Amino acid sequence: MIKPRIALDMDEVIADVSPKFLDLYEQELGIRLQKEDYWGKKIYQINGAMHVRDFLHEKGFFADLPVMPGSQEVVKSLTEHYDVFITTAAMEFRASLEDKYDWLLQHFPFIHWRNFVFCGDKSILRADYMIDDHVNNLETFTGKGLLYTASHNIHETRFTRVNNWEEIGDFFEKERK
Amino acid sequence: MIKPRIALDMDEVIADVSPKFLDLYEQELGIRLQKEDYWGKKIYQINGAMHVRDFLHEKGFFADLPVMPGSQEVVKSLTEHYDVFITTAAMEFRASLEDKYDWLLQHFPFIHWRNFVFCGDKSILRADYMIDDHVNNLETFTGKGLLYTASHNIHETRFTRVNNWEEIGDFFEKERK
Repeated sequence: MIKPRIALDMDEVIADVSPKFLDLYEQELGIRLQKEDYWGKKIYQINGAMHVRDFLHEKGFFADLPVMPGSQEVVKSLTEHYDVFITTAAMEFRASLEDKYDWLLQHFPFIHWRNFVFCGDKSILRADYMIDDHVNNLETFTGKGLLYTASHNIHETRFTRVNNWEEIGDFFEKERK
Repeated sequence: MIKPRIALDMDEVIADVSPKFLDLYEQELGIRLQKEDYWGKKIYQINGAMHVRDFLHEKGFFADLPVMPGSQEVVKSLTEHYDVFITTAAMEFRASLEDKYDWLLQHFPFIHWRNFVFCGDKSILRADYMIDDHVNNLETFTGKGLLYTASHNIHETRFTRVNNWEEIGDFFEKERK
């Protein structure tokens, strides 16, 4: 039996980028941002924080990101029923390629490298489901898109929203009924 | 107007891997292979040559591959009518990621990084055309597949064959008529 496919994003879906951005912002500007400060946008879209985004180009930035809570367990269980591809828009950041590769091998060893996809424009992908925090990726997707809640997408209403990995597990359990 | 999309392979299609393999074989085994020695298979499938494949894991292997003759000019002209994505099965080789990235920026600067795709299993790709030397990639492709002639695929008859970049240019010119 061919399993349905899931195209699963990395950053802000299985890898938590926010804590590192908050640390960098505090380090650079001396202020610890609270959720209400950046809710509705990206952390680096706050006045004076744009250069925090430059750290994305540094070796090591993506190497030690914390794993999104619950993602390992749920992804592992999803692989029983689905062919899970990790699809990440890595190409803007040359320095991220090896870091992301190593991070996946370390934290998601049950996903084979054959199922890693490092790309830019995700409209090249063909799958049955896509889990992503970026609306533009879901807009061009031909399968069913799930929007993973992140600060920058909270006002979006066009897609099925998932707020955490427990909700993703529940969604796919219902899909199989 | 949305342009039709081409998923274009790298190795043995726009990057010529054979000369390096032949050099390595000669260096390791003291014999300069002739075309008839490896025609019908991969160079490393010749008796005693399997370890030549290990060099694919070394940093630098993919950094200085010669560009396939005519590919730059034809790809550049194709970008006027098509959205060209470079789709390469790089994931088996961690050390190849940065080398391939740099090689593309150097030799195909007119292809934006948004259109780079480093993957493993190419059945995740959605495009209108695929140009590839590996039959298994064309087998799972849902668009029109073009088989680029390489020593290991000469006995294949199921796909439209292209022997060089001039033929690719001609093929797409006819497609637009």
